[in-house]
Order: sequence, then C-alpha cells, then structure tokens
Amino acid sequence: MSRLRAALDPRSVAIIGASDNHNKIGGRPVHYLDKFGFKGKIFPINPTRSDVQGHKCYPSIADLPEAPEMVIVAVAGDNAIGAVEDCAARGVKVAVVMASGFGEVDAVAGKAKERHMVEVAHRAGMRIVGPNSQGLANFGTGAIASFSTMFMDMDRAEGHVAMLSQSGALSTVPVGFLRQKGIGVRHTHATGNDADVTVGELAVAVAEDPEVKLLLLYLESIPDTKYLEELAAVALDRDLPIVALKSGRTEAGRQAAQSHTGALANEDRVVDAFFEHHGIWRAPDMRGLVEATELYLKGWKPRGRRLVAISNSGAVCVMTADAATSAGMPMARLAPETDKKLKGILPTFATTTNPIDLTAALLSNSRLFGDILPVIAEDPAADAFLIGIPVAGPGYDVPTFARDAAAFGKQTGKPLVVAATQKSVADEFAAEGISVFPTEVEGVAALHQFLSHRELMARTRGRRADKARPVSPAIASTGGTQMLNEAESLALLAAHGIPVVPHRLCGSRAEAIAAFEAIGGPVVVKGCSADIAHKSELGLVKLGVATREATGDIYSEMEEIIRKHGARFDGVIVAAMAGGRREIMIGAHRDPVFGPVVAMGDGGKYVEVFRDTTLLLPPFTQADAIDALQRLRFAPLFAGVRGEPPMDVTALSDAIVKIGALMADPAAKIMSLDLNPVMLDSAGKGCVVVDAVVFRAA
Amino acid sequence: MSRLRAALDPRSVAIIGASDNHNKIGGRPVHYLDKFGFKGKIFPINPTRSDVQGHKCYPSIADLPEAPEMVIVAVAGDNAIGAVEDCAARGVKVAVVMASGFGEVDAVAGKAKERHMVEVAHRAGMRIVGPNSQGLANFGTGAIASFSTMFMDMDRAEGHVAMLSQSGALSTVPVGFLRQKGIGVRHTHATGNDADVTVGELAVAVAEDPEVKLLLLYLESIPDTKYLEELAAVALDRDLPIVALKSGRTEAGRQAAQSHTGALANEDRVVDAFFEHHGIWRAPDMRGLVEATELYLKGWKPRGRRLVAISNSGAVCVMTADAATSAGMPMARLAPETDKKLKGILPTFATTTNPIDLTAALLSNSRLFGDILPVIAEDPAADAFLIGIPVAGPGYDVPTFARDAAAFGKQTGKPLVVAATQKSVADEFAAEGISVFPTEVEGVAALHQFLSHRELMARTRGRRADKARPVSPAIASTGGTQMLNEAESLALLAAHGIPVVPHRLCGSRAEAIAAFEAIGGPVVVKGCSADIAHKSELGLVKLGVATREATGDIYSEMEEIIRKHGARFDGVIVAAMAGGRREIMIGAHRDPVFGPVVAMGDGGKYVEVFRDTTLLLPPFTQADAIDALQRLRFAPLFAGVRGEPPMDVTALSDAIVKIGALMADPAAKIMSLDLNPVMLDSAGKGCVVVDAVVFRAA
Repeated sequence: MSRLRAALDPRSVAIIGASDNHNKIGGRPVHYLDKFGFKGKIFPINPTRSDVQGHKCYPSIADLPEAPEMVIVAVAGDNAIGAVEDCAARGVKVAVVMASGFGEVDAVAGKAKERHMVEVAHRAGMRIVGPNSQGLANFGTGAIASFSTMFMDMDRAEGHVAMLSQSGALSTVPVGFLRQKGIGVRHTHATGNDADVTVGELAVAVAEDPEVKLLLLYLESIPDTKYLEELAAVALDRDLPIVALKSGRTEAGRQAAQSHTGALANEDRVVDAFFEHHGIWRAPDMRGLVEATELYLKGWKPRGRRLVAISNSGAVCVMTADAATSAGMPMARLAPETDKKLKGILPTFATTTNPIDLTAALLSNSRLFGDILPVIAEDPAADAFLIGIPVAGPGYDVPTFARDAAAFGKQTGKPLVVAATQKSVADEFAAEGISVFPTEVEGVAALHQFLSHRELMARTRGRRADKARPVSPAIASTGGTQMLNEAESLALLAAHGIPVVPHRLCGSRAEAIAAFEAIGGPVVVKGCSADIAHKSELGLVKLGVATREATGDIYSEMEEIIRKHGARFDGVIVAAMAGGRREIMIGAHRDPVFGPVVAMGDGGKYVEVFRDTTLLLPPFTQADAIDALQRLRFAPLFAGVRGEPPMDVTALSDAIVKIGALMADPAAKIMSLDLNPVMLDSAGKGCVVVDAVVFRAA
Repeated sequence: MSRLRAALDPRSVAIIGASDNHNKIGGRPVHYLDKFGFKGKIFPINPTRSDVQGHKCYPSIADLPEAPEMVIVAVAGDNAIGAVEDCAARGVKVAVVMASGFGEVDAVAGKAKERHMVEVAHRAGMRIVGPNSQGLANFGTGAIASFSTMFMDMDRAEGHVAMLSQSGALSTVPVGFLRQKGIGVRHTHATGNDADVTVGELAVAVAEDPEVKLLLLYLESIPDTKYLEELAAVALDRDLPIVALKSGRTEAGRQAAQSHTGALANEDRVVDAFFEHHGIWRAPDMRGLVEATELYLKGWKPRGRRLVAISNSGAVCVMTADAATSAGMPMARLAPETDKKLKGILPTFATTTNPIDLTAALLSNSRLFGDILPVIAEDPAADAFLIGIPVAGPGYDVPTFARDAAAFGKQTGKPLVVAATQKSVADEFAAEGISVFPTEVEGVAALHQFLSHRELMARTRGRRADKARPVSPAIASTGGTQMLNEAESLALLAAHGIPVVPHRLCGSRAEAIAAFEAIGGPVVVKGCSADIAHKSELGLVKLGVATREATGDIYSEMEEIIRKHGARFDGVIVAAMAGGRREIMIGAHRDPVFGPVVAMGDGGKYVEVFRDTTLLLPPFTQADAIDALQRLRFAPLFAGVRGEPPMDVTALSDAIVKIGALMADPAAKIMSLDLNPVMLDSAGKGCVVVDAVVFRAA
C-alpha cells in the first residue's frame, strides 16, 4: 500500500474544524479515530477550543508541532479553500475535503474552485480527496476520515471487503446490507467530486491491501479507464475479485445521472464489454452488488458450475432446478454408484437423482443428512451444492443438520449454500459458518454469480497471458476523419489478411469488361466514390450482371450517376457474386472512453432492428470471438440445423480477431468500420467481406 | 362460502388420533383450534384418553354425541383408511387426511388406496382433503385443521391474504415471508395429494371469502384447468388478484417435479399464456410470489405506470430510473408548471426533473419533503411514486418525512412505496402505513408487478365482456387424427374467411395448363398428397414456373414422384406467386390440458431456431392478437423501418383471430394447423396463407 498511503494509513491526522460534538461533521472523525483504534497522532484544529474530545486542540495548522500526513477539512464553503492552501503550505500529504458546494453545484465557478485547490495542492506535492467527499474509512488501520453516521453504531468489526464509491450514500448502503448479514468491511470510501484523487485511483491503492478479499465499486460514470484498467490488472495479479455496480444502464438512468452530476453518459453495452474484458463482474443492481459477498470470502476454488441440490421439500427441489438451469447452472448428473448408495440409505419414496428430495423422512430420521452427505461428497460430478430446508421445527434436529452440512462443506472444499427461510433454522447453519440465503432463488443467484465470475476471471487471466499488449484508446490524428472508398476499404482489409470478395476497381469501360472476363460472370457491379456511403439508394449496385456488354454499359451509367451527383468518381468495382449462407455483420468503432470496440452479429438490412450483436474490446483471442459468436441469438445456425452442414465459425472468428488487431493498432488509424454483409459459408468454405465502409483518421 | 363450507367454516371438528401433546400431529390441531378462537365444537377422539387439552375425549367417532362436520384424520397409514370409512358412515361432511404414504409413495397401490377412500366418501356425500395434507387453516373462522409448526409462535393475526398449495412447505414458506413483513394471512391451506378436493377447487371456495383481498397459489403441475378457470372467473368478478407460482419452468425443474410427484409436465409457454389469458399474474419465483403483497392490500386503483421518483440521493435517482424503465415503467414527464414550482422550493443544485434529487439539502431543511410533495401530487402525469431514503441519521427528521409521505399518499390516492435500507428509517415509514422496501430494486419490482397485474386484470375483464363463450379443450373424435392435403387445408381456411393464395387443384395436365392461364404466370406448382407433409424435400415445390408448357411438364413429373413414393396422388396445385414482405407463421395445436393454443411469429425456415413467437389461448380479441404480435422481437418491422411503409398488421391479426375461432369451435375438429409462410404485405395489401398443413380429428 505504498500508493496513496497517507490517505489509507496516515501516521498523523489533523481535523480542521474539529468539534467536541460527535454529531457534527468536524466531531465525528475525531470520535471515529478514537473509537476504531487509530494508532497515529490526532490533531484537532479549532481556534475557539483548547481541547476536543480529550485531544489537545490547536488554533491553526501552522501551530501544529509537526506537519500531519492527512488533514480532514471539515469547514464549509470557501473556508475549505483557505484550509487546503494552509495544508499545502504546511507540507501535508493528503487533504480530505468534505465541504460541498463546488463542481457538483456549479459546473463553472465550482469547478474553477476545485481546479484552484488541486493546483495549489499539486505544486506542494499534496493530494486532495474530494471536495464533497463523505470521507475515507480504513478499519484495518483505524484511519476513519469520514463523517458517515453509519459508523456511530458500529463496533470495531474488521473484515475483508472494500467498498468504494464517489457517492456517500452508495458507499454506506451496501455496507449496511453486509453488516445485516454479519459481514465485516475493511474499507469504505466515498471520494466525492474526484477533483484530484479519483475513486479509481483510490481503488488501485485499496486493491493492494492484502487483507482485502473482495472489492466492491459503485460508479455512475466512467470518464476514463486508466485507473480501472490498472485496478483490474492489480486485482487479477492477486486473484482479487471486483464487483462493480455501474448505474445509468438505461437512457432514463443516464439522463438522471447527467442532471445530477453532469456525468458523461457511457454507452452501456460497451461498459458491459469493458468489465467483461477485465474480469470485473458487473452487478445489475444494489442486490447484485452485495448478494454473493460471503461466497467470495470462503476461499473456494470452483472448477465448474454443475449444481447438486438437496432438500426435505420436493417443491424446493423443483424450484432450485428451475432457478439453477435458467441461470445457466446445469444440474449435476450423479454417478450410478452414488444413486445406488443413496437408495441404500434413503426411504423408497425419496428421490435419489439430483435434485435429491429427502422428503419429510428427515423428520423421523435426523441422521439422514449425516448419512447421505458423505456419499454425495465423493461424487466428482458436483461443482457446488445447495441445501434447502424451507421448513423445520419441533422434531427436526437442525443443529445436527448444520454440523453435518459444515463437515460436508469441509470434506468437499466446494461451494455450498443453504436456503432456509426460518430464522431459527438459518441461524443454526450460519453459526456453523455456512452461507445462508432466505430462499433458493437468492442462493442460486449468489452461487451463479460467484461461479461465473470465477470463470470470467480465469478466462481473463488466460487471455492476458496470451496478449499482454495494451490497447491505446486514442489515435494520432491531424484532425477529422476521412471515409475510404469501397475499393480502398476492401484493399485495407485484404492487406490485413481479412478475406474480401474477388473484385477489381476499373477506371474505364474496357477495364470493366476485362474484369468481367477475368472474374467470370455473373458479377456485381458497384459505383465507387469516397463521397457516397449508401450506394444502393442511388442505383450504384447491380447484382447478377451476366454479360460483357452489360458490364460495360453499367460502367458508363454509374460514372454518369456519380458525376451527376457532383461526387468524386473513383471508378467502378466489378466483383464476384459471393456465395455463402448467412449475412454477418462485423463493425468497429472507437469509443471516446473505452477505445476500440468490435461488434459482430447477424447482418443484412435489419441489423438495427434485430440487434443480435455482441461486443468485444481488443485485444481478444479467437476463443473470445467464438465465445462471443456463440452468445448470439442466431448462434444455433452455426452448428447447422434442419440437416444443414455447420458454418465456418473458425474463418469468421479469425476475421474478427484480425479486425480487433487492426483496431488496436494506432498506426492503422481506423476510426470505424462497417462490414455488412460478410458472407459466411459452410465449414471449410470460409467467409468473405462483400461490402465495407472504413473511416480513417485524417 | 357455500362451497366446501365444512372445510373452511365447520360448525364442529373431531380429531381422530387427538393427543395432549402440542408437538404431535394429533395434538397441534386441537391446540390451534383453541388458540385461534374456533367457535364450533371440538371433539378429540382417542380410545386411550378421557380428556385432551381440556376437551372431553371420545373413544371413537361412533361415540360422538353428533356427527361432526369436519374430521381431522391424524392417525397414520392404513389406520387412516379405517378412519375415513368411519367418518363416511357417521355422516361427516369433510375429512382432512394428514397421513402420508399413499399416492405420493406408490403410484399403484398408494393411488388405489386413495381411490378407495374417495369412493367410500363420495358414496356417503363426504369430501376428502388429502391424504398427505398438512392441513387447512382459516384464521377468519379459527378452523385450523393443520399440523404446521409455523402457527405455534403465531399470534392471532388475521389478514386478507390466502395462500394455497398442495405442498406443506410451500404453503408455509410464503406465509413466513409475509409474517416477517407484518402482513396477516387469513387462509393457508396445503391440500396434499388432492385425491378428491384439489387445490384448485379449494381455491374457488376461498376466493368466495369476501375478506380475502389477494390469493396466492403454488402449483407444481396443472392436471386440468376446470377449477383454475372457475377460480379466475370468480376472482375477476370480485376484482380479487391472484398471483401464482407454477414451478417446473425449465426442463430440469419439470424432471424434478415428475420424480417427486409423478406430476404431469405442462408446456411452460402455454402455462404463461393460460395465466395471462385469465388475468392471473405468474410469479417467477418465491420472491415474486410474495414481494408485492402489501401493494395489493392498499385498495389502489392505478391508471397507468408512469413513475415519479424522489430521493435525497442522486445515485438512488439514477438506479430507480434504471430499474423502472428497464422493467417497463416509464419515468413520468412532469408539467413545466410543476418544475417551476419545485424550482421555487428546492435549492438550485437540486434536480427538479423526474427523478427528483433533493440532495443533502434535506439534512438542513426537513420541511423540503412536506413542501414539495403537495406540488408533485397535483401533477396528473404521475401514476405511482417511489421515495428513496438510502441514508438518514442524526440531523434528519425522519418522523416528519414519514408523516409528510403518508399525507401525500392519502392526497394522491396513488401507489406509493418507500425504499429505505436502514431499519430505523424503514420503521418510521412503515409505522405510517407505507410499504417499505430495502432498496429501489425491490420497490420498483413490486410496483411494476402490481401495476402490470392490474392492467392485465382490466384487459382480461374487457375481453371477457367481449367474448364470453367458453372454449372446450376436448373435441369429439372417433379416434386418431387425419392430415388434410394442402388443397383441403387451404380450402378449409378460405371457408373460414382466412385469405389464402389464389390457386387451383388440378387433376390433369390440361387442368394445370388452364390454371396457369387463368392465374397468369409465373406460378408456383406443388404436388398435393395427404400422405406427404414435407413437399420440398421430394422436389414437389417449383417456384417461378413461367410457361404453360413447363406447368404441364411439372404436373406430369410430380404425379410420377408422388406415385413412385406410393403416396396417394391428390393432384397438383397451381398457385399464384404470393407477394408480401415478410414470412410469418401462424400455428395452432390442442394442448392436452389447456386446449387450443394459437402461436404466431416470425416465419420461414428457421422458426424453430429463432423461436420469435407468442402464444394466445382462444377466445381472444383482435386487440389481444395485435398486442401479442407487438411483443415479437421483430415487431419493429411492422411499423416500417429504413423508410419502408408499415405492414398490414390489421389483416394479419384478423387472420389470427379467425384461426383462434376455428380452434375454439369443437365442430371444426381441428387438432393442429401450421401455416408457414403467411406472406405479410404492406398496410392495405393484406396477408395470404401460402402453405398450410391441417390435422383434423378423424
């Protein structure tokens, strides 16, 4: 934790505006530093007092016996600016500015004040957290530089979870949920306006704390990716999972975010692709942010996601199978031997196939659990377990079930959750250290997230080993973009190894006729002009041209059409009629924040209606591309349906990887490209780009 | 509650196998009858005791001073059969049989015992609940004929919710959740094996209880629809919402259900269509079954689903907008006047457009809520409200907020929920009678369900007024089904007013040539045989036949092909080349449980891959058909994209309604039909059935 150490583990903290009152913004941090065992020096600053909460109080920062590493600026408005100036002058390392009324209120004057504070700070080598920050809280070091009321009724309960957010509310709400579940938090930081230190930069520093086992993030906008990429890399290196809730998923959400913070609106599907690329799990909402937390803290190393469910209720068996398989967790197929052994233990009316329905037999025989669990533990087909006890009461020996389940969990070392609605039942299992959820719905959701996230992290790590070269989001440009004509676009793709339809750019009627003869009819004839993107509308695409003469005539017609429109005449393309079975689209653009983005999907005229596309951020592997293709709705067609042969997914994914590399190469200066259609043929017969529009940085 | 009155409101209850021990199956009902204030007579029966829990105990049912209306059979195994026989002989009205070990254990011998009990009962005019029933509990009458342990720690807390299930566990788990939320339950019944009285029949009786304001159902399979249809009708008549959780949504779930109860596997999409047809909300899982309960009990009459969100956290504003709009609840657009008034009240940095971000200004001015809510109340754009208070603590006047919110709720009479994570905050709002959820996610989900369900109920009521004729699922058949040849299929459709492609069935080469001339070329020529469903594969479809001669030649070829295959030669169809812009499919079949089902969707070769279809159960209106069409993924094409004109959805929906009527008519004896493609043209140009395969009952 060398980076931003003074923010997370300062040796001394001064509080400008310190108060004796625990309920005042300047009183709470003093109280918290004491309460949570901060071991460094505490310097309250307040010209009207000699003592604050038992600490000697100083009239000003200049009067301190030494320069404090951290200063909490708990005075309001413009006084905060003066305080920051004083801190910089005194040699402070980090100032946590709680005062609001800056950039979040006034995008011009407020932002200017923020810039001034940051300039003053940077000149003196000081960093600023805030302004408008609820503050930082590191329960590991006791450095609680926060005025959150939540910590008032909290005992010292260090944990292994870190929660970071710009928003004060969103730094505390998830922590509230975790506390309700008895899960300790080590860090909870609310960085405010991020004028200097951003939530991303602070997250990198927090990720370096070896005691942190799960990092949670709330983000409302992603203005740049630098620190998030670094965070992802640091986390992946030490196998630290990150779960991020990025709001503004919908247009209405983005509008709300913009009116409340002026936040930049990120394109949501690109945000998905970005997190996925970096092995970060994107939580859909607040529940998803916190729901699986316990599972991450168990140290499990899952190998798959096949579930075994065991319950004393047949209905819970059915609902667990529903929930698991619809989430994407198949029910494990247990070995015949396991089934045989279970049949020897369970009554005849129990169900020994997975999900295993113990029935109410559990009521009359409390040993059933202890007898069957070791049998199930030996079956290698299971990757994870859910035990559902929706009802138990007098007659049920729940403490024994809980002990048996805990022993089973230890024996297998595999993920295990319990679904129990009754508090008395849940408490027994929780007391044995088992993760308990109120119903199978939440249990399955948490398991699915945990197992899928672990798979995602493994995949990301694999890809990173494969291709470590970073992608620069920006490309050098002397200004503006320039559309290539179709021949140039196709030539550029061909030069990068991407198969394009056989064609010739012809500058005369004679060349067109020669091209017809060389290619062999029927051919496609297309007018070529860097000024015209939509050729069809102007009659500049003729399919199935069958004769030399027609080719020549069409050449002349198209030249006339293009010139009549005052567009540059770059020639006429004579191309082979491309075979293939499905029209695919491959597109790419440069997102202003996330850099190059490659899209692939079902092509043709209605691309925008069906929106059956997936996104990848370069660099990515062929396995990534195949995986992305297989997630398309029309993916079943790839394997061949109704007796058709499979399609050439290998060739298609290879082309997509090459497009990714092209976009990742700043020297290629590609701003966007739109290949539609790419004709995909049967396996072994490849794919060809039939039409292409490429924009390049000028 | 005339139906099954003795099950729900008996004047006297006897308990065979009564016990003094509250924790025994025969002890609990006696205890519960006392505890929950049952006003009728209680007759414990146990030959070994003279007194049970303070009630005089009788040695046998024959010794009772009168015939009890209800008997709880709390003895095990075959003793239960003897008890049922005794009850029948004594003139009992209903026997609740708790003993297990019947049909759920042994599909042959166990079922036979069940049949015997039912026969004995019916001969005597007695009804049976169970066997394997956890029992019935009506807190309205105090008739608690149940051995559920859950009622041990329950106070008498009558409510307005009814929960019915075959499964004991699933009758109590939802009730447990409701109790945790402080919601009272009036009925909770677990009917067990449903040998006689089914959960559906009991639900109809419960739905007639005027105190029931919400009826919850858990179903694992739907063996027949009779009582569910009656239930839906009764409920709709008295505006009683029904929320049903039908498990077995997935193949794995259905398999689990079958191995645990031998339950019939319903086709899940038809289950969806059935519930929707009847105005029943289908909950996806246990959470969905109970989550919106409070909202149903408020008596709100919502008019739409435009949401207004108000929070002191900008982040909650963003997440609420995300959750609402992605669920299908648009954010209301408030009037400029409202905005102006709010601007006059709120600080400049607050957001006055919906969602309304009060910011931390609420901390310094507790009156903000009370000031802005009446302004918002006056704006007619809002249909429902969510107030999010993720954080509050010292300094926040939460009791005032709660009172202001409650007054606002009364003023508007519109649905209002609060999202508050902190228990202290949640409790204040709950104390004012407001529905509180831990986050905006749950609040929005509950509002969305409630508002959408209310819309569904209104739509169902409208349709019912329109078309009251019931649909018979069964049709008379002398056995087997018979495929019509294409000409017969098209003729049948045409006779029912469904547009089919112009065509002629030709019995000779000369007739084929005459047809070509009458229709005008190019034509389609198709071989016609009631023995051949897939013509293309055999070369029996030729498109674009352009000459008389070719038509004649193809006639001869096709006759030869058909005869060579040993199939009946019914002639050759010469048809016009149908125009149109999109291939649509309309299908229909008779589900063994749900009767006629009409499917519509994107047509063509890959219908099975894309599965872009929706289902409707007859009878349905043209508005229903249009609504179902608009839910298709490709629906945007109907309106016209990329400059295309709109398509003729009116003609298409008219054809679908006619197919619905045809399937609903038992006299037509249609078993299934598959119209693919139906060519859909631009608005005003209609649609035509190009190919049809109809199966009819023989």
